[in-house]
Formats: sequence, structure tokens, C-alpha cells
Amino acid sequence: MIPSLENLVEALSQLPTIGKKSAWRLALFLLEQNQEQVENLANCIGEIKEKICVCSECFNYSEEELCSICTSATRDRSVICVVEKPMDVFTIERSGRYRGLYHVLGGVLSPINGVTVDKLRIEELKQRVAKAKPEELILGLGGSADAETTALYLSRLFTQSPLRITRFARGLPAGMELEYVDQVTLSQALNERIAIHYSTGNKDNS
Amino acid sequence: MIPSLENLVEALSQLPTIGKKSAWRLALFLLEQNQEQVENLANCIGEIKEKICVCSECFNYSEEELCSICTSATRDRSVICVVEKPMDVFTIERSGRYRGLYHVLGGVLSPINGVTVDKLRIEELKQRVAKAKPEELILGLGGSADAETTALYLSRLFTQSPLRITRFARGLPAGMELEYVDQVTLSQALNERIAIHYSTGNKDNS
Repeated sequence: MIPSLENLVEALSQLPTIGKKSAWRLALFLLEQNQEQVENLANCIGEIKEKICVCSECFNYSEEELCSICTSATRDRSVICVVEKPMDVFTIERSGRYRGLYHVLGGVLSPINGVTVDKLRIEELKQRVAKAKPEELILGLGGSADAETTALYLSRLFTQSPLRITRFARGLPAGMELEYVDQVTLSQALNERIAIHYSTGNKDNS
Repeated sequence: MIPSLENLVEALSQLPTIGKKSAWRLALFLLEQNQEQVENLANCIGEIKEKICVCSECFNYSEEELCSICTSATRDRSVICVVEKPMDVFTIERSGRYRGLYHVLGGVLSPINGVTVDKLRIEELKQRVAKAKPEELILGLGGSADAETTALYLSRLFTQSPLRITRFARGLPAGMELEYVDQVTLSQALNERIAIHYSTGNKDNS
């Protein structure tokens, strides 16, 4: 009917979480914006593939050979957080609470899907740890079964190294009411419960 | 950190229903696609403003002076469906059940927001009705208070014309269970209830 609009809808509906209806809504929204805004979006999309490569140190996306985190003078070089994918780096960065470096694995081990050790940046991690000698490796790999297996594999890989290996705490998400928590999370929250100390001689209530 | 990626995230998060987190997810998804797909999306976005204008008859989007619905030989020219915006045309078209023409008002009357009669294509609708002499005008304007007011205004505007003026039925949405229906919808469904006739002499059960 309107080929250029339908082509746009088709292209937009290829994006994740955007169905046909959302694609129509987005396309019609774009039509109502001014020329400059629409061109800006088109240019931004057009240039990412040219401009962005992968950091040769941590394998996060970067516009340079080394990314801005790996070259930063203010980051703590004694800690490397191992994550699955670039999105995880941005998620952790947004929290603003982590000042160490990253290592993007490019996935988690999943032999059934053909993701074996050689498909991930595990050899690169070994070399990096041997060379940079960090004090701590945080395995920031999420809670799926494959992620847990990968964390276990990595922790065993580095048992010989003089390294502190940690993982994220498991427990109740912030703001979650107890009645809505699933059983696995609740079990983990119970297993990994934290002692609350009082400063003056209180009795042991446990 | 990565200017070209952050510019894209910024541009994407200007779109409706796309927050910062979705924008990151979309941007990183695009990075993982091949050059061709990404360029295709950029081109589709880039060219819509150049290629698409507004149909001079029905005011829907079009690539020509007159849109494909207005010029179609197979559409029923005796019915015009008045809708608020182009999205509504696509919604009705998708149902595949309407074969008449459209008239896009460009909004609904809302004096508090400065949308007065002269801001909408109401004068154009009057001229079109006078010229094309359709048999029926369907007011397909949604259920908000402003939309209802607009429908009332339009129905009064054409009382002198030899026109059948209709609006969409109000009632239960398909598949909706009675217990989840809101009171207004239920009242309308009751008010506009439809008689079910039996072919052989049944008694009146009402």
C-alpha cells in the first residue's frame, strides 16, 4: 500500500520485543517527527557497524583497539568481573558501584547448543589472568543452569592461581515481598543469610 | 564511553514505549546483525520522510497525491469511515473486514488542549461528503470522552445530509470473561444488547 512505510515496519519488526503492531506505531511516530530527528536516528544506526569493534583486552564493544574501561586510569586493575555479554557490562556500569575491569566471555557453556570451551573467550581469560595478575575474579554470570556450570568450570580452572574468586550474592531482589519470592530464590536467600551484629553483648538468637 | 553506541541509544530511547534499557538492548542487538540488515533499517528510516506525504482526499499517509485506498477500483465508495489518526486506518485494514474509504481527522476535539474544530479535517470532510455523496458515514472514533464528543459533533453536523451515520458497536471484547469487564463496558454491552431470533415460534423470554 505504502511501500516505504511497509518496508520500515518490516525492518522494525525484525528487532527483538517489537511485534508488528509496535512496529507500525514506531513507524508512524517517526513519520510525525521532523526531518532532522529521523535522519539522526538513521545515521546513528547506519554508522554503528562501521565505528564499533571489539576491545582486544576485555572483548566489550569499543570504538578503539582498547575500550575506555581498559584504558582508564581510575579503574581498579586488581579486579576483573567476568560477564556473559556486552549488555551485562552496561547493566553493571549503570549501577555505578563497580570500579574494576571486565572480561566478556561471549556466552556461557552450553554443550547441547554447541557452545564449548573453545567458543568462549576462556583461553583469553587465562592468558589475561596470567599476565595481568589480578587479585580477584568476580564471576558475574547470572543464575541460569548453564551460567552456574560455566562459573563452576571457571572457578576450577583458576584453583591453582593465587586468586580470590567470587560470585554475585543470591537472595531476595530489592523491594520484593516474601510471598512472591520463588522457592529456589528463597532457599538461596536462606542458605546465604548474613549475620547482623550488634555492638553491645547481645545473646545469640539463632 | 562508546560515543556512536551511546548516540544510538539516545536516539532510540526517544521512541515511544522504548526506555533506556530497551534502547540498549536494541542497540546491542543491531550491533550483532550483519552490515546489510543494519543498513537496510537505516535506509528505511532515512527515506520515509522524503517519500511519504499525506493523501489529499482522505489525509492518510501515502507516497502519491492520492493514496492507494482512495484510488482503488475495488473499494466501496458509498461508505466513509472517519478515524482519528493513520494508525487507526492500519488497524482497521488489518482486520480485513472493511472495504470502504477513510477520512483521517488528525485528532479528536479537545478544547482544553487547544484542539478546536478548525484544527481537524472537519471542513474537508464536509466538502468531501457534499461532493462524493456517500451513503454512510461510520464514526470510528474510539471510546474516550473527547472521541465521543467529536462523534456527537460530527453526527449533528450531518443531520441535514441524506446520510446514514453509524458508529462502532460497544460491548464485550472477544474472549473477555465477564468478571474482568469494567462497569462502563458492561453497561454499554447491556444497553446495546442484540436480539437472538429463533426461526420457530418461541416465547418472549425477556
